[in-house]
Amino acid sequence: MQTHLDCIPCFLHQSLEAARMATRDEKKHEEVMKKVMNHLQTIDFTHSPPEISQHVHHIIRTVTGNTDPYEKVKLEANQHAKDQYPTLKKMVEQSDEPLLIAAKLAIIGNVIDFGTMNRMNVKDMVDNIAHKPFDDTGYESFKQRVNDAKTIVYLADNTGEIFFDRLLLEQLKDEKRHVTYVVKQYPIINDATADDAAYAGIDAYADIIAGDKDATYSAPGLVLSNMSTELKDLINDADLVISKGQGNYESLSDIDREIFFLLMVKCPLVASNIGIDVGTMVLKVKQ
Amino acid sequence: MQTHLDCIPCFLHQSLEAARMATRDEKKHEEVMKKVMNHLQTIDFTHSPPEISQHVHHIIRTVTGNTDPYEKVKLEANQHAKDQYPTLKKMVEQSDEPLLIAAKLAIIGNVIDFGTMNRMNVKDMVDNIAHKPFDDTGYESFKQRVNDAKTIVYLADNTGEIFFDRLLLEQLKDEKRHVTYVVKQYPIINDATADDAAYAGIDAYADIIAGDKDATYSAPGLVLSNMSTELKDLINDADLVISKGQGNYESLSDIDREIFFLLMVKCPLVASNIGIDVGTMVLKVKQ
Repeated sequence: MQTHLDCIPCFLHQSLEAARMATRDEKKHEEVMKKVMNHLQTIDFTHSPPEISQHVHHIIRTVTGNTDPYEKVKLEANQHAKDQYPTLKKMVEQSDEPLLIAAKLAIIGNVIDFGTMNRMNVKDMVDNIAHKPFDDTGYESFKQRVNDAKTIVYLADNTGEIFFDRLLLEQLKDEKRHVTYVVKQYPIINDATADDAAYAGIDAYADIIAGDKDATYSAPGLVLSNMSTELKDLINDADLVISKGQGNYESLSDIDREIFFLLMVKCPLVASNIGIDVGTMVLKVKQ
Repeated sequence: MQTHLDCIPCFLHQSLEAARMATRDEKKHEEVMKKVMNHLQTIDFTHSPPEISQHVHHIIRTVTGNTDPYEKVKLEANQHAKDQYPTLKKMVEQSDEPLLIAAKLAIIGNVIDFGTMNRMNVKDMVDNIAHKPFDDTGYESFKQRVNDAKTIVYLADNTGEIFFDRLLLEQLKDEKRHVTYVVKQYPIINDATADDAAYAGIDAYADIIAGDKDATYSAPGLVLSNMSTELKDLINDADLVISKGQGNYESLSDIDREIFFLLMVKCPLVASNIGIDVGTMVLKVKQ
Protein backbone atom coordinates (compact mmCIF):
# COMPACT_ATOMS: atom_id res chain seq x y z
CA MET A 1 0.00 0.00 0.00
CA GLN A 2 1.32 3.41 -0.96
CA THR A 3 1.83 6.37 1.36
CA HIS A 4 -0.63 9.25 1.01
CA LEU A 5 -0.33 12.97 1.68
CA ASP A 6 -2.80 12.40 4.54
CA CYS A 7 -0.08 10.34 6.26
CA ILE A 8 2.05 13.46 6.75
CA PRO A 9 0.06 15.02 9.63
CA CYS A 10 -0.18 11.52 11.13
CA PHE A 11 3.59 10.93 10.96
CA LEU A 12 4.14 14.28 12.65
CA HIS A 13 1.55 13.62 15.34
CA GLN A 14 3.24 10.29 16.02
CA SER A 15 6.72 11.86 15.99
CA LEU A 16 5.72 14.37 18.64
CA GLU A 17 4.14 11.68 20.80
CA ALA A 18 7.23 9.48 20.46
CA ALA A 19 9.62 12.39 21.12
CA ARG A 20 7.72 13.26 24.30
CA MET A 21 7.88 9.65 25.45
CA ALA A 22 11.60 9.57 24.64
CA THR A 23 12.69 12.71 26.51
CA ARG A 24 11.38 15.65 28.52
CA ASP A 25 13.74 18.02 26.71
CA GLU A 26 11.43 20.34 24.73
CA LYS A 27 14.27 21.52 22.52
CA LYS A 28 14.67 17.91 21.41
CA HIS A 29 10.94 17.71 20.66
CA GLU A 30 11.27 20.75 18.41
CA GLU A 31 14.38 19.32 16.75
CA VAL A 32 12.55 16.03 16.08
CA MET A 33 9.62 17.84 14.46
CA LYS A 34 11.87 20.00 12.29
CA LYS A 35 14.05 17.08 11.19
CA VAL A 36 11.04 14.87 10.46
CA MET A 37 9.44 17.67 8.38
CA ASN A 38 12.73 18.09 6.57
CA HIS A 39 12.82 14.36 5.80
CA LEU A 40 9.16 14.14 4.76
CA GLN A 41 9.82 16.67 2.01
CA THR A 42 12.02 14.11 0.30
CA ILE A 43 9.96 10.92 0.53
CA ASP A 44 8.78 8.71 -2.31
CA PHE A 45 5.03 8.25 -1.93
CA THR A 46 5.12 4.92 -3.78
CA HIS A 47 6.76 3.45 -0.66
CA SER A 48 4.49 1.98 2.02
CA PRO A 49 3.88 3.90 5.28
CA PRO A 50 6.04 1.46 7.32
CA GLU A 51 8.94 2.15 4.93
CA ILE A 52 8.55 5.88 5.61
CA SER A 53 8.24 5.15 9.35
CA GLN A 54 11.66 3.45 9.27
CA HIS A 55 13.31 6.78 8.64
CA VAL A 56 10.96 8.85 10.81
CA HIS A 57 11.63 6.70 13.88
CA HIS A 58 15.35 6.55 13.12
CA ILE A 59 15.34 10.36 13.32
CA ILE A 60 13.43 10.26 16.63
CA ARG A 61 15.86 7.74 18.14
CA THR A 62 18.90 9.64 16.89
CA VAL A 63 17.77 13.09 18.08
CA THR A 64 16.51 11.95 21.48
CA GLY A 65 19.19 9.32 22.11
CA ASN A 66 16.42 6.96 23.25
CA THR A 67 16.35 3.64 21.39
CA ASP A 68 12.98 2.57 22.81
CA PRO A 69 10.64 5.52 23.46
CA TYR A 70 7.60 3.26 23.89
CA GLU A 71 9.21 1.01 26.54
CA LYS A 72 6.85 2.10 29.33
CA VAL A 73 3.61 1.87 27.33
CA LYS A 74 4.68 -1.53 26.00
CA LEU A 75 5.23 -2.88 29.53
CA GLU A 76 1.84 -1.51 30.56
CA ALA A 77 0.11 -3.02 27.52
CA ASN A 78 1.66 -6.43 28.22
CA GLN A 79 0.71 -6.31 31.89
CA HIS A 80 -2.84 -5.21 31.13
CA ALA A 81 -3.32 -7.89 28.47
CA LYS A 82 -1.84 -10.53 30.78
CA ASP A 83 -4.49 -9.61 33.36
CA GLN A 84 -7.23 -9.99 30.74
CA TYR A 85 -5.91 -13.27 29.33
CA PRO A 86 -7.64 -15.77 31.73
CA THR A 87 -11.06 -14.22 31.00
CA LEU A 88 -10.42 -14.28 27.27
CA LYS A 89 -9.24 -17.89 27.42
CA LYS A 90 -12.53 -18.83 29.08
CA MET A 91 -14.45 -17.11 26.29
CA VAL A 92 -12.65 -19.29 23.76
CA GLU A 93 -13.05 -22.50 25.80
CA GLN A 94 -16.77 -21.93 26.29
CA SER A 95 -17.41 -21.16 22.65
CA ASP A 96 -18.98 -23.55 20.13
CA GLU A 97 -16.55 -22.26 17.56
CA PRO A 98 -13.26 -21.68 19.38
CA LEU A 99 -11.21 -20.99 16.22
CA LEU A 100 -13.57 -18.17 15.20
CA ILE A 101 -13.68 -16.60 18.67
CA ALA A 102 -9.89 -16.90 19.04
CA ALA A 103 -9.41 -15.27 15.64
CA LYS A 104 -11.82 -12.44 16.54
CA LEU A 105 -10.05 -11.87 19.85
CA ALA A 106 -6.66 -11.87 18.09
CA ILE A 107 -8.08 -9.15 15.84
CA ILE A 108 -9.48 -7.20 18.80
CA GLY A 109 -6.03 -7.34 20.42
CA ASN A 110 -4.86 -5.27 17.45
CA VAL A 111 -6.79 -2.35 18.97
CA ILE A 112 -3.77 -1.91 21.28
CA ASP A 113 -1.75 0.38 19.04
CA PHE A 114 0.32 3.54 19.42
CA GLY A 115 1.05 3.64 15.71
CA THR A 116 -2.27 5.23 14.73
CA MET A 117 -4.25 8.28 15.79
CA ASN A 118 -7.44 6.30 16.31
CA ARG A 119 -7.44 4.83 19.79
CA MET A 120 -10.19 2.35 20.57
CA ASN A 121 -11.30 0.60 23.71
CA VAL A 122 -10.33 -3.07 23.99
CA LYS A 123 -12.74 -3.79 26.85
CA ASP A 124 -15.66 -2.36 24.89
CA MET A 125 -14.64 -4.47 21.88
CA VAL A 126 -14.40 -7.68 23.96
CA ASP A 127 -17.64 -7.03 25.86
CA ASN A 128 -19.52 -6.45 22.61
CA ILE A 129 -17.61 -8.90 20.42
CA ALA A 130 -20.77 -10.36 18.87
CA HIS A 131 -22.09 -6.95 17.82
CA LYS A 132 -18.99 -5.21 16.52
CA PRO A 133 -18.61 -4.93 12.74
CA PHE A 134 -16.63 -7.92 11.43
CA ASP A 135 -15.66 -8.55 7.83
CA ASP A 136 -15.22 -12.32 7.97
CA THR A 137 -15.13 -12.89 4.20
CA GLY A 138 -11.87 -14.81 4.61
CA TYR A 139 -12.96 -16.98 7.53
CA GLU A 140 -14.22 -20.11 5.78
CA SER A 141 -11.10 -20.40 3.66
CA PHE A 142 -8.97 -19.56 6.75
CA LYS A 143 -10.58 -22.48 8.62
CA GLN A 144 -9.86 -24.77 5.68
CA ARG A 145 -6.24 -23.63 5.41
CA VAL A 146 -5.67 -24.05 9.15
CA ASN A 147 -7.04 -27.55 8.92
CA ASP A 148 -4.71 -28.48 6.05
CA ALA A 149 -1.59 -26.53 7.03
CA LYS A 150 1.57 -28.24 8.19
CA THR A 151 3.58 -25.02 8.28
CA ILE A 152 2.21 -21.68 9.45
CA VAL A 153 3.98 -18.32 9.61
CA TYR A 154 2.27 -15.88 11.99
CA LEU A 155 3.47 -12.27 11.64
CA ALA A 156 2.96 -10.50 14.97
CA ASP A 157 2.17 -6.85 15.53
CA ASN A 158 2.00 -5.18 18.94
CA THR A 159 2.79 -5.73 22.61
CA GLY A 160 -0.32 -6.49 24.63
CA GLU A 161 -1.87 -7.87 21.45
CA ILE A 162 0.50 -10.86 21.73
CA PHE A 163 -1.59 -12.28 24.60
CA PHE A 164 -4.58 -12.17 22.23
CA ASP A 165 -2.43 -13.87 19.58
CA ARG A 166 -1.67 -16.61 22.09
CA LEU A 167 -5.37 -17.52 22.15
CA LEU A 168 -5.27 -18.12 18.41
CA LEU A 169 -1.91 -19.90 18.57
CA GLU A 170 -3.43 -22.28 21.14
CA GLN A 171 -6.04 -23.20 18.53
CA LEU A 172 -3.41 -23.62 15.81
CA LYS A 173 -1.22 -25.94 17.92
CA ASP A 174 -1.24 -29.47 16.59
CA GLU A 175 1.32 -32.30 16.52
CA LYS A 176 1.41 -32.36 12.73
CA ARG A 177 1.86 -28.60 12.40
CA HIS A 178 4.80 -26.22 12.80
CA VAL A 179 4.09 -22.59 13.65
CA THR A 180 6.62 -19.75 13.45
CA TYR A 181 5.73 -16.53 15.29
CA VAL A 182 7.53 -13.56 13.77
CA VAL A 183 8.29 -10.51 15.91
CA LYS A 184 10.52 -7.46 15.41
CA GLN A 185 14.21 -7.70 16.27
CA TYR A 186 14.51 -4.07 17.36
CA PRO A 187 12.07 -1.80 19.21
CA ILE A 188 9.77 0.15 16.88
CA ILE A 189 6.73 2.01 18.21
CA ASN A 190 4.89 -0.51 20.41
CA ASP A 191 5.59 -3.54 18.24
CA ALA A 192 6.38 -6.80 19.99
CA THR A 193 9.93 -8.18 20.18
CA ALA A 194 11.13 -11.68 21.15
CA ASP A 195 11.22 -10.75 24.85
CA ASP A 196 7.55 -9.74 24.71
CA ALA A 197 6.60 -12.98 22.95
CA ALA A 198 8.45 -15.01 25.58
CA TYR A 199 6.72 -13.01 28.33
CA ALA A 200 3.37 -14.00 26.79
CA GLY A 201 4.40 -17.66 26.83
CA ILE A 202 4.19 -17.96 23.09
CA ASP A 203 7.24 -20.23 22.94
CA ALA A 204 4.99 -23.09 24.10
CA TYR A 205 3.00 -22.80 20.88
CA ALA A 206 5.41 -21.58 18.23
CA ASP A 207 9.02 -20.92 17.35
CA ILE A 208 9.70 -17.24 17.90
CA ILE A 209 11.92 -15.53 15.35
CA ALA A 210 12.73 -11.90 14.52
CA GLY A 211 11.92 -10.94 10.95
CA ASP A 212 13.89 -7.73 10.40
CA LYS A 213 17.62 -7.61 9.87
CA ASP A 214 18.81 -4.04 10.47
CA ALA A 215 18.08 -1.92 13.56
CA THR A 216 18.46 1.34 11.61
CA TYR A 217 15.59 0.38 9.38
CA SER A 218 13.34 -1.21 11.94
CA ALA A 219 9.78 -0.65 10.69
CA PRO A 220 6.28 -1.05 12.20
CA GLY A 221 5.43 -3.56 9.49
CA LEU A 222 7.66 -6.24 7.90
CA VAL A 223 9.27 -4.45 4.97
CA LEU A 224 10.68 -6.70 2.26
CA SER A 225 13.91 -4.71 1.89
CA ASN A 226 14.70 -5.23 5.59
CA MET A 227 13.38 -8.81 5.90
CA SER A 228 15.78 -11.63 6.82
CA THR A 229 16.40 -14.29 4.17
CA GLU A 230 15.19 -16.88 6.69
CA LEU A 231 11.81 -15.16 6.95
CA LYS A 232 11.52 -14.65 3.19
CA ASP A 233 12.06 -18.39 2.72
CA LEU A 234 9.61 -19.26 5.47
CA ILE A 235 6.95 -17.03 3.94
CA ASN A 236 7.55 -18.49 0.50
CA ASP A 237 7.31 -22.08 1.70
CA ALA A 238 4.57 -21.84 4.36
CA ASP A 239 1.18 -23.48 3.82
CA LEU A 240 -0.47 -20.56 5.61
CA VAL A 241 0.69 -17.00 6.35
CA ILE A 242 -1.23 -15.03 8.96
CA SER A 243 -0.43 -11.32 9.09
CA LYS A 244 -1.54 -9.22 12.05
CA GLY A 245 -2.19 -5.50 12.06
CA GLN A 246 -2.24 -2.45 9.84
CA GLY A 247 1.55 -2.10 9.59
CA ASN A 248 2.01 -5.58 8.09
CA TYR A 249 -1.02 -5.00 5.85
CA GLU A 250 0.51 -1.76 4.55
CA SER A 251 3.91 -3.33 3.87
CA LEU A 252 2.73 -6.74 2.56
CA SER A 253 -0.61 -6.12 0.83
CA ASP A 254 1.06 -6.14 -2.59
CA ILE A 255 3.33 -9.19 -2.28
CA ASP A 256 2.86 -12.17 -4.54
CA ARG A 257 1.42 -14.93 -2.37
CA GLU A 258 -1.72 -15.78 -0.43
CA ILE A 259 -1.84 -14.05 2.98
CA PHE A 260 -4.60 -13.94 5.59
CA PHE A 261 -4.73 -10.45 7.04
CA LEU A 262 -6.19 -10.16 10.55
CA LEU A 263 -6.48 -6.58 11.69
CA MET A 264 -8.53 -3.85 13.22
CA VAL A 265 -9.07 -1.03 10.72
CA LYS A 266 -7.96 2.15 12.49
CA CYS A 267 -6.88 4.44 9.66
CA PRO A 268 -9.18 5.88 6.95
CA LEU A 269 -6.57 5.23 4.25
CA VAL A 270 -6.23 1.57 5.15
CA ALA A 271 -10.05 1.46 5.34
CA SER A 272 -10.28 2.87 1.84
CA ASN A 273 -7.58 0.50 0.53
CA ILE A 274 -9.40 -2.55 1.94
CA GLY A 275 -12.83 -1.16 1.11
CA ILE A 276 -14.09 -1.39 4.70
CA ASP A 277 -15.07 1.18 7.34
CA VAL A 278 -12.77 2.30 10.17
CA GLY A 279 -13.58 0.35 13.34
CA THR A 280 -14.17 -2.95 11.52
CA MET A 281 -12.51 -6.23 12.49
CA VAL A 282 -11.08 -7.81 9.35
CA LEU A 283 -10.20 -11.39 8.46
CA LYS A 284 -9.41 -11.08 4.81
CA VAL A 285 -7.51 -13.28 2.40
CA LYS A 286 -5.36 -11.77 -0.30
CA GLN A 287 -4.65 -14.23 -3.14
CA MET B 1 -1.38 32.70 22.91
CA GLN B 2 1.77 30.98 21.66
CA THR B 3 2.00 28.32 19.00
CA HIS B 4 2.78 24.78 20.18
CA LEU B 5 4.50 21.85 18.51
CA ASP B 6 1.08 20.15 18.55
CA CYS B 7 -0.09 22.81 16.06
CA ILE B 8 2.23 21.40 13.38
CA PRO B 9 0.20 18.28 12.48
CA CYS B 10 -2.91 20.48 12.63
CA PHE B 11 -1.47 23.10 10.23
CA LEU B 12 -0.55 20.30 7.83
CA HIS B 13 -3.95 18.65 8.09
CA GLN B 14 -5.55 22.01 7.35
CA SER B 15 -3.13 22.71 4.50
CA LEU B 16 -4.04 19.47 2.77
CA GLU B 17 -7.75 20.12 3.24
CA ALA B 18 -7.40 23.64 1.85
CA ALA B 19 -5.19 22.52 -1.05
CA ARG B 20 -7.77 19.91 -2.02
CA MET B 21 -10.53 22.51 -1.90
CA ALA B 22 -8.38 24.86 -3.97
CA THR B 23 -7.48 22.50 -6.83
CA ARG B 24 -7.82 18.91 -8.02
CA ASP B 25 -4.19 18.86 -9.15
CA GLU B 26 -2.53 16.30 -6.87
CA LYS B 27 0.94 17.55 -7.76
CA LYS B 28 -0.10 20.92 -6.31
CA HIS B 29 -1.33 19.20 -3.14
CA GLU B 30 2.10 17.61 -2.72
CA GLU B 31 3.83 20.92 -3.46
CA VAL B 32 1.68 22.65 -0.83
CA MET B 33 2.55 20.05 1.81
CA LYS B 34 6.26 20.21 1.04
CA LYS B 35 6.38 24.00 1.02
CA VAL B 36 4.34 24.26 4.23
CA MET B 37 6.66 21.75 5.94
CA ASN B 38 9.62 23.74 4.69
CA HIS B 39 8.12 26.92 6.15
CA LEU B 40 7.12 25.36 9.47
CA GLN B 41 10.77 24.47 10.12
CA THR B 42 11.51 28.19 10.39
CA ILE B 43 8.67 29.48 12.56
CA ASP B 44 8.94 31.34 15.84
CA PHE B 45 6.76 29.51 18.37
CA THR B 46 6.25 32.68 20.42
CA HIS B 47 3.96 33.89 17.62
CA SER B 48 0.26 33.06 17.87
CA PRO B 49 -1.25 30.32 15.66
CA PRO B 50 -3.10 32.87 13.46
CA GLU B 51 0.24 34.59 12.79
CA ILE B 52 1.66 31.26 11.61
CA SER B 53 -1.51 30.64 9.57
CA GLN B 54 -0.90 33.89 7.67
CA HIS B 55 2.12 32.36 6.01
CA VAL B 56 0.71 28.85 5.68
CA HIS B 57 -2.35 30.07 3.79
CA HIS B 58 -0.28 32.47 1.72
CA ILE B 59 1.69 29.40 0.55
CA ILE B 60 -1.53 27.52 -0.24
CA ARG B 61 -2.95 30.43 -2.25
CA THR B 62 0.33 30.97 -4.10
CA VAL B 63 0.92 27.32 -5.01
CA THR B 64 -2.67 26.58 -6.04
CA GLY B 65 -3.40 29.98 -7.60
CA ASN B 66 -6.75 29.96 -5.77
CA THR B 67 -7.30 33.03 -3.60
CA ASP B 68 -10.38 31.62 -1.85
CA PRO B 69 -10.22 27.81 -1.43
CA TYR B 70 -13.11 27.79 1.04
CA GLU B 71 -15.52 29.71 -1.20
CA LYS B 72 -17.92 26.79 -1.66
CA VAL B 73 -18.06 25.72 2.00
CA LYS B 74 -18.54 29.34 3.03
CA LEU B 75 -21.55 29.73 0.71
CA GLU B 76 -23.01 26.50 2.07
CA ALA B 77 -22.45 27.55 5.67
CA ASN B 78 -24.16 30.89 5.05
CA GLN B 79 -27.10 29.26 3.31
CA HIS B 80 -27.50 26.64 6.02
CA ALA B 81 -27.33 29.21 8.82
CA LYS B 82 -29.78 31.46 6.98
CA ASP B 83 -32.25 28.57 6.93
CA GLN B 84 -31.82 28.07 10.67
CA TYR B 85 -32.08 31.76 11.52
CA PRO B 86 -35.92 32.09 11.87
CA THR B 87 -36.05 29.20 14.36
CA LEU B 88 -33.16 30.62 16.35
CA LYS B 89 -34.75 34.06 16.40
CA LYS B 90 -37.90 32.55 17.90
CA MET B 91 -35.80 30.89 20.61
CA VAL B 92 -34.44 34.31 21.58
CA GLU B 93 -37.84 36.04 21.41
CA GLN B 94 -39.52 33.39 23.54
CA SER B 95 -36.79 33.45 26.17
CA ASP B 96 -37.02 35.16 29.57
CA GLU B 97 -33.42 36.20 29.18
CA PRO B 98 -32.96 37.05 25.49
CA LEU B 99 -29.45 38.52 25.92
CA LEU B 100 -28.20 35.29 27.50
CA ILE B 101 -29.82 33.04 24.89
CA ALA B 102 -28.59 35.26 22.05
CA ALA B 103 -25.05 35.18 23.49
CA LYS B 104 -25.17 31.38 23.84
CA LEU B 105 -26.42 30.99 20.26
CA ALA B 106 -23.70 33.35 19.02
CA ILE B 107 -21.21 31.05 20.75
CA ILE B 108 -22.84 27.92 19.29
CA GLY B 109 -22.55 29.51 15.82
CA ASN B 110 -18.79 29.36 16.39
CA VAL B 111 -19.07 25.57 15.96
CA ILE B 112 -19.12 26.26 12.19
CA ASP B 113 -15.37 26.21 11.62
CA PHE B 114 -12.97 24.76 9.07
CA GLY B 115 -9.97 26.11 10.96
CA THR B 116 -9.86 23.29 13.51
CA MET B 117 -9.78 19.50 13.38
CA ASN B 118 -12.64 19.12 15.84
CA ARG B 119 -15.92 19.33 13.97
CA MET B 120 -19.05 19.54 16.07
CA ASN B 121 -22.73 19.44 15.29
CA VAL B 122 -24.56 22.78 15.39
CA LYS B 123 -28.03 21.22 15.44
CA ASP B 124 -27.13 19.03 18.41
CA MET B 125 -25.74 22.10 20.21
CA VAL B 126 -28.88 24.16 19.53
CA ASP B 127 -31.28 21.32 20.42
CA ASN B 128 -29.50 20.74 23.72
CA ILE B 129 -28.50 24.32 24.45
CA ALA B 130 -29.59 24.15 28.09
CA HIS B 131 -27.54 21.03 28.80
CA LYS B 132 -24.29 21.74 26.97
CA PRO B 133 -21.30 22.77 29.10
CA PHE B 134 -21.18 26.56 29.35
CA ASP B 135 -18.55 28.58 31.18
CA ASP B 136 -20.56 31.76 31.78
CA THR B 137 -18.19 33.29 34.33
CA GLY B 138 -18.10 36.50 32.29
CA TYR B 139 -21.86 36.80 31.73
CA GLU B 140 -22.91 39.05 34.65
CA SER B 141 -20.21 41.57 33.88
CA PHE B 142 -20.99 41.24 30.14
CA LYS B 143 -24.63 42.14 30.84
CA GLN B 144 -23.52 45.14 32.87
CA ARG B 145 -21.09 46.31 30.17
CA VAL B 146 -23.74 45.92 27.44
CA ASN B 147 -26.12 47.99 29.52
CA ASP B 148 -23.59 50.81 30.00
CA ALA B 149 -21.81 50.72 26.63
CA LYS B 150 -22.18 53.51 24.10
CA THR B 151 -19.58 52.04 21.75
CA ILE B 152 -19.17 48.35 21.03
CA VAL B 153 -16.64 46.65 18.77
CA TYR B 154 -17.70 43.14 17.76
CA LEU B 155 -14.94 41.05 16.16
CA ALA B 156 -16.52 38.45 13.88
CA ASP B 157 -15.22 35.00 13.08
CA ASN B 158 -16.77 32.65 10.51
CA THR B 159 -19.31 32.52 7.72
CA GLY B 160 -22.53 30.85 8.81
CA GLU B 161 -21.73 31.94 12.36
CA ILE B 162 -22.55 35.52 11.31
CA PHE B 163 -26.28 34.68 11.30
CA PHE B 164 -25.89 33.59 14.92
CA ASP B 165 -24.00 36.84 15.60
CA ARG B 166 -26.96 38.73 14.16
CA LEU B 167 -29.14 37.38 16.99
CA LEU B 168 -26.79 38.93 19.52
CA LEU B 169 -26.42 42.16 17.51
CA GLU B 170 -30.22 42.49 17.54
CA GLN B 171 -30.04 42.47 21.35
CA LEU B 172 -27.21 45.00 21.39
CA LYS B 173 -29.00 47.45 19.09
CA ASP B 174 -30.04 50.60 20.93
CA GLU B 175 -30.44 54.26 19.93
CA LYS B 176 -27.76 55.42 22.35
CA ARG B 177 -25.26 52.76 21.21
CA HIS B 178 -22.92 52.42 18.24
CA VAL B 179 -21.81 48.94 17.22
CA THR B 180 -18.98 48.16 14.79
CA TYR B 181 -18.88 44.65 13.35
CA VAL B 182 -15.37 43.73 12.24
CA VAL B 183 -14.84 41.16 9.50
CA LYS B 184 -11.82 40.12 7.43
CA GLN B 185 -10.94 42.14 4.31
CA TYR B 186 -9.54 39.15 2.41
CA PRO B 187 -10.65 35.52 2.32
CA ILE B 188 -8.93 33.35 4.91
CA ILE B 189 -10.17 29.84 5.72
CA ASN B 190 -13.93 30.18 6.28
CA ASP B 191 -13.78 33.56 8.01
CA ALA B 192 -16.50 36.07 7.18
CA THR B 193 -15.84 39.05 4.92
CA ALA B 194 -17.95 42.21 4.39
CA ASP B 195 -20.01 40.49 1.66
CA ASP B 196 -20.96 37.72 4.07
CA ALA B 197 -21.93 40.22 6.77
CA ALA B 198 -24.10 42.12 4.30
CA TYR B 199 -25.69 38.84 3.19
CA ALA B 200 -26.63 38.17 6.82
CA GLY B 201 -28.24 41.62 7.04
CA ILE B 202 -25.86 42.77 9.72
CA ASP B 203 -25.68 46.29 8.28
CA ALA B 204 -29.08 46.96 9.90
CA TYR B 205 -27.52 46.53 13.34
CA ALA B 206 -23.90 47.62 13.02
CA ASP B 207 -21.32 49.34 10.86
CA ILE B 208 -19.37 46.69 9.01
CA ILE B 209 -15.63 47.26 8.64
CA ALA B 210 -12.69 45.10 7.63
CA GLY B 211 -9.99 44.86 10.27
CA ASP B 212 -6.95 43.59 8.39
CA LYS B 213 -4.87 45.72 6.07
CA ASP B 214 -2.78 43.41 3.85
CA ALA B 215 -4.10 40.49 1.78
CA THR B 216 -0.74 38.68 1.91
CA TYR B 217 -0.97 38.45 5.66
CA SER B 218 -4.66 37.75 5.99
CA ALA B 219 -5.03 35.68 9.18
CA PRO B 220 -7.83 33.64 10.78
CA GLY B 221 -7.69 35.90 13.83
CA LEU B 222 -7.08 39.65 14.00
CA VAL B 223 -3.33 39.95 14.29
CA LEU B 224 -2.04 43.25 15.69
CA SER B 225 0.74 43.58 13.10
CA ASN B 226 -1.81 43.42 10.27
CA MET B 227 -4.60 45.40 11.96
CA SER B 228 -5.77 48.68 10.44
CA THR B 229 -5.11 51.85 12.45
CA GLU B 230 -8.85 52.52 12.37
CA LEU B 231 -9.57 49.23 14.12
CA LYS B 232 -6.76 49.69 16.64
CA ASP B 233 -8.27 53.08 17.58
CA LEU B 234 -11.78 51.64 17.75
CA ILE B 235 -10.62 48.82 20.02
CA ASN B 236 -8.73 51.25 22.25
CA ASP B 237 -11.68 53.61 22.61
CA ALA B 238 -14.63 51.17 22.75
CA ASP B 239 -16.64 50.72 25.94
CA LEU B 240 -17.01 47.05 25.13
CA VAL B 241 -15.05 44.69 22.88
CA ILE B 242 -16.63 41.35 21.99
CA SER B 243 -14.32 38.85 20.34
CA LYS B 244 -15.70 35.78 18.62
CA GLY B 245 -13.93 32.48 18.08
CA GLN B 246 -10.69 30.68 18.74
CA GLY B 247 -8.66 32.56 16.13
CA ASN B 248 -9.33 35.96 17.70
CA TYR B 249 -8.75 34.45 21.16
CA GLU B 250 -5.38 33.11 20.06
CA SER B 251 -4.28 36.40 18.52
CA LEU B 252 -5.75 38.79 21.12
CA SER B 253 -5.66 36.92 24.45
CA ASP B 254 -2.53 38.79 25.52
CA ILE B 255 -3.45 42.39 24.54
CA ASP B 256 -3.73 45.05 27.15
CA ARG B 257 -7.43 45.84 27.48
CA GLU B 258 -10.65 44.25 28.68
CA ILE B 259 -12.13 41.90 26.07
CA PHE B 260 -15.11 39.55 26.27
CA PHE B 261 -14.27 36.33 24.49
CA LEU B 262 -17.21 34.36 23.15
CA LEU B 263 -16.15 31.05 21.65
CA MET B 264 -16.60 27.35 21.35
CA VAL B 265 -13.52 25.54 22.61
CA LYS B 266 -12.52 23.18 19.81
CA CYS B 267 -8.76 22.75 20.26
CA PRO B 268 -7.07 21.07 23.26
CA LEU B 269 -4.37 23.76 23.36
CA VAL B 270 -6.90 26.59 23.52
CA ALA B 271 -8.77 24.53 26.13
CA SER B 272 -5.61 24.24 28.21
CA ASN B 273 -4.82 27.96 27.79
CA ILE B 274 -8.32 28.96 29.00
CA GLY B 275 -8.45 26.20 31.58
CA ILE B 276 -11.66 24.70 30.18
CA ASP B 277 -12.53 21.41 28.47
CA VAL B 278 -12.90 21.01 24.69
CA GLY B 279 -16.57 21.24 23.72
CA THR B 280 -17.39 24.00 26.21
CA MET B 281 -19.17 27.23 25.29
CA VAL B 282 -17.21 30.11 26.75
CA LEU B 283 -18.21 33.66 27.68
CA LYS B 284 -15.10 34.86 29.43
CA VAL B 285 -13.80 38.31 30.26
CA LYS B 286 -10.09 39.06 30.08
CA GLN B 287 -9.15 42.18 32.09
